[in-house]
Amino acid sequence: MSNPFFLNKGPISLIKVYEFLKITNQKKRDFNFYDIKDLYSADKKSITFFHSKKYKEVAKSTKALFCLTSELLKDFLPKTCEPIIVSNVLTAVASITEKFYPYSVEDKFDNKVLNIENRDYKGVIHGKNVLIGENVKIGTNCLIGHNTIIEKNVEIGDNCSIGSNTIIRNSIIKNNVIILDNCIIGKKGFGFFPNNKKNLRYPHIGIVIINEDCEIGCGATIDRGSMSNTEIGKNTFLDNQIHIAHNVKIGENTIIAGQVGIAGSSIIGNNVRIGGQAGISGHLKIGNNVDIAGGSGVIKDIPDNSRVMGYPAKNLRKFLRENK
Amino acid sequence: MSNPFFLNKGPISLIKVYEFLKITNQKKRDFNFYDIKDLYSADKKSITFFHSKKYKEVAKSTKALFCLTSELLKDFLPKTCEPIIVSNVLTAVASITEKFYPYSVEDKFDNKVLNIENRDYKGVIHGKNVLIGENVKIGTNCLIGHNTIIEKNVEIGDNCSIGSNTIIRNSIIKNNVIILDNCIIGKKGFGFFPNNKKNLRYPHIGIVIINEDCEIGCGATIDRGSMSNTEIGKNTFLDNQIHIAHNVKIGENTIIAGQVGIAGSSIIGNNVRIGGQAGISGHLKIGNNVDIAGGSGVIKDIPDNSRVMGYPAKNLRKFLRENK
Amino acid sequence: MSNPFFLNKGPISLIKVYEFLKITNQKKRDFNFYDIKDLYSADKKSITFFHSKKYKEVAKSTKALFCLTSELLKDFLPKTCEPIIVSNVLTAVASITEKFYPYSVEDKFDNKVLNIENRDYKGVIHGKNVLIGENVKIGTNCLIGHNTIIEKNVEIGDNCSIGSNTIIRNSIIKNNVIILDNCIIGKKGFGFFPNNKKNLRYPHIGIVIINEDCEIGCGATIDRGSMSNTEIGKNTFLDNQIHIAHNVKIGENTIIAGQVGIAGSSIIGNNVRIGGQAGISGHLKIGNNVDIAGGSGVIKDIPDNSRVMGYPAKNLRKFLRENK
Repeated sequence: MSNPFFLNKGPISLIKVYEFLKITNQKKRDFNFYDIKDLYSADKKSITFFHSKKYKEVAKSTKALFCLTSELLKDFLPKTCEPIIVSNVLTAVASITEKFYPYSVEDKFDNKVLNIENRDYKGVIHGKNVLIGENVKIGTNCLIGHNTIIEKNVEIGDNCSIGSNTIIRNSIIKNNVIILDNCIIGKKGFGFFPNNKKNLRYPHIGIVIINEDCEIGCGATIDRGSMSNTEIGKNTFLDNQIHIAHNVKIGENTIIAGQVGIAGSSIIGNNVRIGGQAGISGHLKIGNNVDIAGGSGVIKDIPDNSRVMGYPAKNLRKFLRENK
Repeated sequence: MSNPFFLNKGPISLIKVYEFLKITNQKKRDFNFYDIKDLYSADKKSITFFHSKKYKEVAKSTKALFCLTSELLKDFLPKTCEPIIVSNVLTAVASITEKFYPYSVEDKFDNKVLNIENRDYKGVIHGKNVLIGENVKIGTNCLIGHNTIIEKNVEIGDNCSIGSNTIIRNSIIKNNVIILDNCIIGKKGFGFFPNNKKNLRYPHIGIVIINEDCEIGCGATIDRGSMSNTEIGKNTFLDNQIHIAHNVKIGENTIIAGQVGIAGSSIIGNNVRIGGQAGISGHLKIGNNVDIAGGSGVIKDIPDNSRVMGYPAKNLRKFLRENK
Repeated sequence: MSNPFFLNKGPISLIKVYEFLKITNQKKRDFNFYDIKDLYSADKKSITFFHSKKYKEVAKSTKALFCLTSELLKDFLPKTCEPIIVSNVLTAVASITEKFYPYSVEDKFDNKVLNIENRDYKGVIHGKNVLIGENVKIGTNCLIGHNTIIEKNVEIGDNCSIGSNTIIRNSIIKNNVIILDNCIIGKKGFGFFPNNKKNLRYPHIGIVIINEDCEIGCGATIDRGSMSNTEIGKNTFLDNQIHIAHNVKIGENTIIAGQVGIAGSSIIGNNVRIGGQAGISGHLKIGNNVDIAGGSGVIKDIPDNSRVMGYPAKNLRKFLRENK
């Protein structure tokens, strides 16, 4: 995936892929992969993966020449794409992604930070004990509060105000963004392959992008993406204690009240309002101009211009009528 | 609003008010406003505002001589009160309040804090890296944990224990209060006027008042009020990860379990018990001696001595009978 | 209770017990108590307590020779066990436990910490401003992030990674555990005896035990136990913003998504999956291999191998059928 922060260690040869996955029954040919990408975005130079029937239509037209998949799914692939059969597709994806992006699996603290006085950020007004890692850009007219840590791989635009006790890494923050105290932005998401004895880590090569004029309340956790980015649109405001999981995309002019949680890979439209403590399950699509009442639990897609309430969330009027 | 911390920059003349609001069709008279107050508390020296029919009864008897309002509402005002017609009442209120209280809109970190060793708090037992802003009073026999920041405009009583990594500003903490780690107390609330392209900030001239013998758990966010204070009554205990929004008032001897959220301007009585993860919508009145079961979503007022459960919360027995 | 951290100040004589509880109508005999234990675990050298009819079967066979109880319950005790009648059993328990374990009631910040450079932890890779208290052991190959505070009474195994801005006290962390940023682990739980004017503190002599290969997400609060430990089993993963109350036991290979809360003394099995924002009431038993859907509110025990959803949580299929 293209982003400025996670260095791609490719190319990786087909022979190496077989070796990493302990595949021994294959003819050893010469071929180089330059990246690992999903079925939509893969090109001839990247290895792709196909792990669920849900993606069979996309699979049919993938441009990739090689695809990690299973016996059950391989026949959906076009003739131009050679299946590499593995027993667990996602584990294989994790393994190969880690080879391309070795620093994306774990989230050790950044031990190369320096006190901001020892770095060259003369235009920044900052508090005490501010620590800055490598590869951090900060625009003009920015404020950074006390004890805040900007770890490696962060770009902050102009006129931003970052609170105290906040930690940011692997993120792009655009102009005029306000981030309040105690936030954790850009850590890896809660993605792994459950495994008795010892769960397997899933790489997180996505970043967090917060667009212009947003406000992020106190105590937010916004995780970076695994295979895509986590992104918050312009002029979207988040209240306190909100959790945004990996790969979530939120539109513009959206307002999210306190203690809301949005699970992984869900997409929220523009001009959406989400009441306090509402929860949104993973992999959903919430349209534009949607109102979700406080406390709702959303477990399916919601079309544009809807007003919903309840657990599971349904039409607002219907819910109120049924729950007098 | 009267509180010791936000300096009133008034008086502001009627001519200036017209100018700020770009009202040009009015006769320019000489009149001075000394404050902006709501319909209930406004006197002859303050400008008031009337933005919703809900307040028509109060409007009828306001003592203010001038009121920001709309064409639709102006006829509810008494003859003694002259309407100042604006297209968006709340935006006008925000604009004028900002003129009276220019420092109440944003929450930049306090860059005038000093390490506590460089201030005169000899009786305080404190941890490492404690930072204290201007206009901070601390009573006798207090503890302040490591990395805690007491920003400007805070009064702490006697025998208080503040944890580590906590941030407090614009607050009055009475005697014998315990505040645990990682709390954020006194930041501005989540109040603004939604506006495509760029939301407008709403001033927050209220403070947080925590009365005697309270305990506030780890990770609490307690926002200061906008036009009134946020207040927690004596001997009320809050568990971890609780969010209390702006203008909320909580009574005495109340017990609130983990992860509860209370939305803006709600009033909670004395001897109330709120179970974990319950949510209370904004602008509600919860009576005395009320029990709210964990996980409930309260969306309407609850009378004294009630036991409720559910989402929406209803009589406890009814809910349990219906949900066997 | 036996744990390595809270020093037992016993023995305490029967005469002293009468004195502490202001019991004056008893013959003064010579007898020494070496600990206070619950009905199950008490032996002849410890004082026990019996405060609810729920425990009458256990009471009948207690080995203790003396028991704090009430007039109403005393007749369930065996003849070998002499009742010590008090008006409020739990208040009496709190009072006597505090005599045995005087440092277990409050959670003042640890003011004996030193910067890690001034302690002898040469193998630890650590960030800036790391503070370490007394009686802290750290294994080999560990990382500790910036501004993290390890207060007194902590054991950390080998190969652990602790994030930044995290606070740990009174805890045992086994090998290969990852704890992310902004966590508060080992503080006293939300246990006290409600009392008008001034709530009474309940002692917390338990600790937190986190077993091998666990991961704890950002912003977790894991409280230590009151009369038993809080414990998390091997290879269990917690997402962000989770609250685990005192005395909770969680099994192995369990996965808990963001913003979940588990109330005091509940027991969660192995291989359990709990979706985001779910809440589990106190004193429940959740079996092995249970799936709890996101947003659920669990208010009763759940047997092994169940899948539940809803508030209150019920069979998943039933809930979905009823809520189409």
